[in-house]
Amino acid sequence: MNQDTICAIATAAGSGAIGIIRVSGEQSIEMVNSIFIPAKTGTTLTNKKAYTLTFGKIYKDEEIIDEVLVSLFRAPHSFTGENSVEITCHGSSYILQQVMQLLIEKGCRIALPGEYTQRAFLNGKMDLSQAEAVADLIASSSAATHRLAISQMRGGFSKELINLRTQLLNFTSMIELELDFSEEDVEFANRKDLRTLADNIQTIIANLANSFSVGNAIKNGIPVAIIGETNAGKSTLLNVLLNEDKAIVSDIHGTTRDVIEDTVNIQGITFRFIDTAGIRDTRDKIESMGIERTYRKLEQAEIVLWMIDVNDTPEKIIKLSEKILPKCEGKKLALLFNKSDMMNKEQKEMLAHILPDIIAERLYISAKLKQNTEALENLLIKTANLPNVTQNDVIVTNIRHYEALTHALESIRRVQEGLQQNISGDFLSQDIRECMHYLGEITGQISNDEILGNIFSHFCIGK
Amino acid sequence: MNQDTICAIATAAGSGAIGIIRVSGEQSIEMVNSIFIPAKTGTTLTNKKAYTLTFGKIYKDEEIIDEVLVSLFRAPHSFTGENSVEITCHGSSYILQQVMQLLIEKGCRIALPGEYTQRAFLNGKMDLSQAEAVADLIASSSAATHRLAISQMRGGFSKELINLRTQLLNFTSMIELELDFSEEDVEFANRKDLRTLADNIQTIIANLANSFSVGNAIKNGIPVAIIGETNAGKSTLLNVLLNEDKAIVSDIHGTTRDVIEDTVNIQGITFRFIDTAGIRDTRDKIESMGIERTYRKLEQAEIVLWMIDVNDTPEKIIKLSEKILPKCEGKKLALLFNKSDMMNKEQKEMLAHILPDIIAERLYISAKLKQNTEALENLLIKTANLPNVTQNDVIVTNIRHYEALTHALESIRRVQEGLQQNISGDFLSQDIRECMHYLGEITGQISNDEILGNIFSHFCIGK
Repeated sequence: MNQDTICAIATAAGSGAIGIIRVSGEQSIEMVNSIFIPAKTGTTLTNKKAYTLTFGKIYKDEEIIDEVLVSLFRAPHSFTGENSVEITCHGSSYILQQVMQLLIEKGCRIALPGEYTQRAFLNGKMDLSQAEAVADLIASSSAATHRLAISQMRGGFSKELINLRTQLLNFTSMIELELDFSEEDVEFANRKDLRTLADNIQTIIANLANSFSVGNAIKNGIPVAIIGETNAGKSTLLNVLLNEDKAIVSDIHGTTRDVIEDTVNIQGITFRFIDTAGIRDTRDKIESMGIERTYRKLEQAEIVLWMIDVNDTPEKIIKLSEKILPKCEGKKLALLFNKSDMMNKEQKEMLAHILPDIIAERLYISAKLKQNTEALENLLIKTANLPNVTQNDVIVTNIRHYEALTHALESIRRVQEGLQQNISGDFLSQDIRECMHYLGEITGQISNDEILGNIFSHFCIGK
Repeated sequence: MNQDTICAIATAAGSGAIGIIRVSGEQSIEMVNSIFIPAKTGTTLTNKKAYTLTFGKIYKDEEIIDEVLVSLFRAPHSFTGENSVEITCHGSSYILQQVMQLLIEKGCRIALPGEYTQRAFLNGKMDLSQAEAVADLIASSSAATHRLAISQMRGGFSKELINLRTQLLNFTSMIELELDFSEEDVEFANRKDLRTLADNIQTIIANLANSFSVGNAIKNGIPVAIIGETNAGKSTLLNVLLNEDKAIVSDIHGTTRDVIEDTVNIQGITFRFIDTAGIRDTRDKIESMGIERTYRKLEQAEIVLWMIDVNDTPEKIIKLSEKILPKCEGKKLALLFNKSDMMNKEQKEMLAHILPDIIAERLYISAKLKQNTEALENLLIKTANLPNVTQNDVIVTNIRHYEALTHALESIRRVQEGLQQNISGDFLSQDIRECMHYLGEITGQISNDEILGNIFSHFCIGK
């Protein structure tokens, strides 16, 4: 158990009207009380009720550091489950630093990243997957990611997993009891009931694991490659998509990726555009290497937008298709005929019948004149074909959960097979225990310092 | 009077653990209540006492936007003096935007910059100079600027000015009463008492106006020019000063200046280093222009650090001094003998006796090896010679106040002269009224939309 009292600046860095310092731990109220004088004489912070605000001044020696509002929370009714205080200061980084320094002098320790949420978990205020949802919620930048984080924070699938795990525990206890009476050849655990439970669990876990592809697309964006010849207008199109969107436009600074990619939020869905070099027939060695790289990046894409200049000859387009199409297998392809504002009747006729055998959406656009870009956005949404997610849907977005689910699925399948083959109780029990272990890892019923450290070190400080 | 309800994000932009939205106005509690459901059933926000916190969820249609803490304030006991609510959300800009949008749908208006503080002023929660101190407090980045802002926010000189102004009002009322009885030649206002008061006011105003040079130095930094030949080590020194300082280092993005200058916080005092080109004897026209510019910039400096390479010949130094010294009149000069690590005995002997007639601090340093830089910092502090300011000192930092004080000083001097020359009451009254006007402009007893607009538009939104 953590017995020390921690403090951190909880608001974003930079100048704002308000800045907040969070203090949590058994001594937090006493520590803040020792640097704070309420405006109303005769009152003391330590005597205040929980869930109240007190106006007053923070002092350092004889000098006023700031006029502040102090919010008081008492264990266990706080975010961390401990005594907690939030100090609302004027948003000057100088003031915030001064108050932090005062708290440290009084014995506070600067909080580690995610330590507030970790304490909330350790004090039983939330399970591990809910704690992880807090970080997702703060990072959420679209309606869909926000919805998934809220669903997970509300308990999402963890309630169900905890329930299933309890049932497995009951069964394995009975099976293990049988082992104690092994000479008598009794069956305390009804094998038929266990089979029903195992089938049920297998279905649920498989559904959850399958939901990861949707969850991941929502969380990290749907990867889209725009390919085509160098002068086909790829970067113009990308700029149009970036500019047209009045909502959130940002870079994903990947933790595992080493490239920075442009993401665009279209109608609440995030698309991640993969940077590719132009493709053309070349004997230049370096240029060939660039084109090879483009093909490799193509592999990451789920949707491929192939931009075709309407002025190209059919021969040229067909020749290029022979290179491109083999790389697009299993991907959703759309042909964008660009510069359509300059297209004449013959070109239109030709393009209408080109590459008749390939299955792809087709759209005429002018990236430069921003013509038909709305249709393109609709095409992307339609092609992405993401289900309409609500806060009641249970969707896995976390790769840690996905991996644990995959392992749990393997174990429960071995239980199913074992039941079919009537294997002995001790083998069954072992597989059930393994399945329980992986389910417990998701909810945090099974955890160790390494898992926790790994999860919470990715949080921001102050959370 | 403002009757509408305003809302704004009050925390700094960017991702943090916590973000706050402020709502103020008569309808603020009802408006937040309409999007908020407390976690504890049976409670309603509108029934809550002031200065309490309520935990619950913000809803948009059927969906949860966030789990939040709501702080409640009721008029007149709030920052603005109106009913106010602060919503503490998770620090995601998506969530903050969603909550803002909900509030706007309910009839809130996005607050203008400084509108909360402006309402606090209009509702009599603080006078104008105190309101201005709020912005200074948020912008404060050193112990000294913080101290001045706190002093001003606590009332500083405004209480005194309001008092003096009231006394002037009493006098002028009596003088104006005399005018009504002008045929009877009575004196209701004792001229001797008025003279005492005018002398008193003149002293106070003059002291305040004089304090501006100190206040301005503290607020905007003491201008320091580092000059010397191109290879004397000026930029190395500047880098050392910037790096050595573990405290706040920032750029002043001047509103009236068009250059960006480096500021360094040394022992709580801000120094503003003026960028200068190297000086040397040249016939190159363009280089000469650069040197001319250096001389012009020198005019802004209060302290001049002249860096001298210890390897220079005495002739060279003396020749350069003939150019530099005339430009340094009235400024505090320090000679920095740089590269002192390479200095031999003869050089030391020579430098010890060079330029014996000029009054200047002298210091041997090695900017490159960071030798004696602490002594240089002490030299700067000593040369700046700023008084040790406490929160009880009354120092003017605001150019608007300084200008008003200068005008008030002119008026009160005319009153003094008029009393000496026994001029008639109506002239006296006119000058007294003018002095009152300027004093009232500082405290906000005299204000108009233009003055207010000008002051509050420089605040950040949410304050």
